[in-house]
Amino acid sequence: MATVRLWTDAEVAADARVRAVFDDIRATRKSDFVNNFWRALANQPDVLERTWSNLKAVMFAPGALDPLTRELVYIAVSAVNACPYCVHSHTAAARAKGMTDAQHAEFLSVVAMAMQTNALATALQVPVDPEFQAG
Amino acid sequence: MATVRLWTDAEVAADARVRAVFDDIRATRKSDFVNNFWRALANQPDVLERTWSNLKAVMFAPGALDPLTRELVYIAVSAVNACPYCVHSHTAAARAKGMTDAQHAEFLSVVAMAMQTNALATALQVPVDPEFQAG
Amino acid sequence: MATVRLWTDAEVAADARVRAVFDDIRATRKSDFVNNFWRALANQPDVLERTWSNLKAVMFAPGALDPLTRELVYIAVSAVNACPYCVHSHTAAARAKGMTDAQHAEFLSVVAMAMQTNALATALQVPVDPEFQAG
Amino acid sequence: MATVRLWTDAEVAADARVRAVFDDIRATRKSDFVNNFWRALANQPDVLERTWSNLKAVMFAPGALDPLTRELVYIAVSAVNACPYCVHSHTAAARAKGMTDAQHAEFLSVVAMAMQTNALATALQVPVDPEFQAG
Amino acid sequence: MATVRLWTDAEVAADARVRAVFDDIRATRKSDFVNNFWRALANQPDVLERTWSNLKAVMFAPGALDPLTRELVYIAVSAVNACPYCVHSHTAAARAKGMTDAQHAEFLSVVAMAMQTNALATALQVPVDPEFQAG
Amino acid sequence: MATVRLWTDAEVAADARVRAVFDDIRATRKSDFVNNFWRALANQPDVLERTWSNLKAVMFAPGALDPLTRELVYIAVSAVNACPYCVHSHTAAARAKGMTDAQHAEFLSVVAMAMQTNALATALQVPVDPEFQAG
Repeated sequence: MATVRLWTDAEVAADARVRAVFDDIRATRKSDFVNNFWRALANQPDVLERTWSNLKAVMFAPGALDPLTRELVYIAVSAVNACPYCVHSHTAAARAKGMTDAQHAEFLSVVAMAMQTNALATALQVPVDPEFQAG
Repeated sequence: MATVRLWTDAEVAADARVRAVFDDIRATRKSDFVNNFWRALANQPDVLERTWSNLKAVMFAPGALDPLTRELVYIAVSAVNACPYCVHSHTAAARAKGMTDAQHAEFLSVVAMAMQTNALATALQVPVDPEFQAG
Repeated sequence: MATVRLWTDAEVAADARVRAVFDDIRATRKSDFVNNFWRALANQPDVLERTWSNLKAVMFAPGALDPLTRELVYIAVSAVNACPYCVHSHTAAARAKGMTDAQHAEFLSVVAMAMQTNALATALQVPVDPEFQAG
Repeated sequence: MATVRLWTDAEVAADARVRAVFDDIRATRKSDFVNNFWRALANQPDVLERTWSNLKAVMFAPGALDPLTRELVYIAVSAVNACPYCVHSHTAAARAKGMTDAQHAEFLSVVAMAMQTNALATALQVPVDPEFQAG
Repeated sequence: MATVRLWTDAEVAADARVRAVFDDIRATRKSDFVNNFWRALANQPDVLERTWSNLKAVMFAPGALDPLTRELVYIAVSAVNACPYCVHSHTAAARAKGMTDAQHAEFLSVVAMAMQTNALATALQVPVDPEFQAG
Repeated sequence: MATVRLWTDAEVAADARVRAVFDDIRATRKSDFVNNFWRALANQPDVLERTWSNLKAVMFAPGALDPLTRELVYIAVSAVNACPYCVHSHTAAARAKGMTDAQHAEFLSVVAMAMQTNALATALQVPVDPEFQAG
């Protein structure tokens, strides 16, 4: 179904550059499962390396936002961008990081709320209040 | 600049239905400041009442997500929808709820990350792994 | 395929809060069929109640726009948001409310037209004429 | 502010190909006012001719949808695409074609409603009911 | 799966207006294969004629941009609009026009890059530098 | 106007980490001018470093796509994402890399064309032809 071929584990094993990224994915996530997104990116080693390197820094390093909050922001972006793959994979990731049903429900409420006020503000072309300007 | 007129405090005071909403906005937020979004919606009392009632329930009620997390999800949606007003007002709200510069930076990183993997997953039309399906 | 479980009629019948919404959906639409959207929202009773309550007020109450016009606006938003479920369900709803093939064809023409001038105005960053400003 | 120069009436008058389009815009709309969108497109005569020719056929020819309904669909698309110029110009056009404040309010309600259910259907990845499939 | 019926070759052959467009598609592309997009548009002959006429002028006429560059721009738009059909059909078209794997990889990198800086510029609401203004 | 403060040259000079990035921007582009986007990102050194490092690799390294093609793809993404800053800065960049008025006009035509067929394919929910599937 993809516009490119998805790499099998055997193909990955036979390519040192791709295998190094897959090994790091498995080690970082502490799981043998590598999802289709990376198997599609394997066709473009430059993109694969840069994307994984960025993702690892942004989503796995300790920081000022807890891992679940980062996943919720990720799903929000993915839902607005209408990316089925991304919604599926990051909803699963949020659950793996402890998202409860109550949190999922509230998250959906906030996204739905933002969608409607976004459209209203745009349709009404509301000018930004000076109080909201930085500096 | 708006496609509708923005209501002044004097006009609000003269309309019982609109005034009731504005009074509740001020009481709920514990602030006299009412931003332009609501002054634009005042032209459509039905929309004003429904929008504020929903927003109050979603953003101000205690719940499973803390107020700052809700604001970050709100800004994420607003950024993808390219709504300048919404980005400005909810970034200001996030700061008022304690968002630090470090949290803002990490939030920006997650949004930027999600944007790029969204586009890659869509451009590659990656099929959803069975492992991500619910139920 | 969904990120949540879809509720069966038996599960709905066993939950008073969800059943009340489903009963109102069936009564309002004068049909026993309840589509998957509501069966997915059943997992989040707050979101289910708020969404149905809003939808009923916006789409089923008599008003200044006829029901078919409201559906056309709904499909237009859904198409730009690239929501397959929403395009399918509201195209079906528009047909049920009398949309003819000729109206569908014209609707498609207007959406396609708006898409292209939207992109041109954005790519050219055309400044808004003072004549278009309100008030 | 634009990424291209906006043509003045004098420049238009000096270019036979552009002038022909502007003359037809004025005659079709029965107004001397030609808005900035066309003054920006004047730099690309091919695009100008094709865009105006399409727009005239879609928006001005008699058809199965009345002119106001077409404008409402146009604004809906423009709001979701976050095009300030398009929202402004087509809201003005809708008013010129008789849109009342009550109709504007209802239109905004429908757009806001669609936005939120679009996001919910996408975030939940609701599968399309067989009942909605054509043919 | 579509919201309209897809026309078979037999149905196309029986309708002079639709057949004329299909004949021109086959002649222009030098191929007997006519993809589902046109079979869906066949239900709306006005839209079919206008869309094909525009597409032929824009994508098949000799011009200042080579055919592959046009396809890359087309895929970029389609990916951001989250249109699976369009991504599939124009990625296939780009390959047919000579796109190499290396070009595809670079194209994906540029799209991913633009997505992230777009979101950052919007989330930060960066004011346009005077140096970027035209004229 | 931004949601963050824009750094002046004096502030940049006083911060070793930010200055290093600005020095590399100036050296890579062979120009003293550093636009507001980077002055806004200076508030988030991690994001600044990662974004510039990625951008330099994607847009400035020699590769399979010429620099102008990359800019056209960049503007296309930016236009669909409705990012005024990005449209302005990358249209200026494309001109600096030799984009002619004729190329700009053709580019606009392709973007406008893709927008309309995207919406049609989505509104019609056209199923992907097996011929377009990879592998």
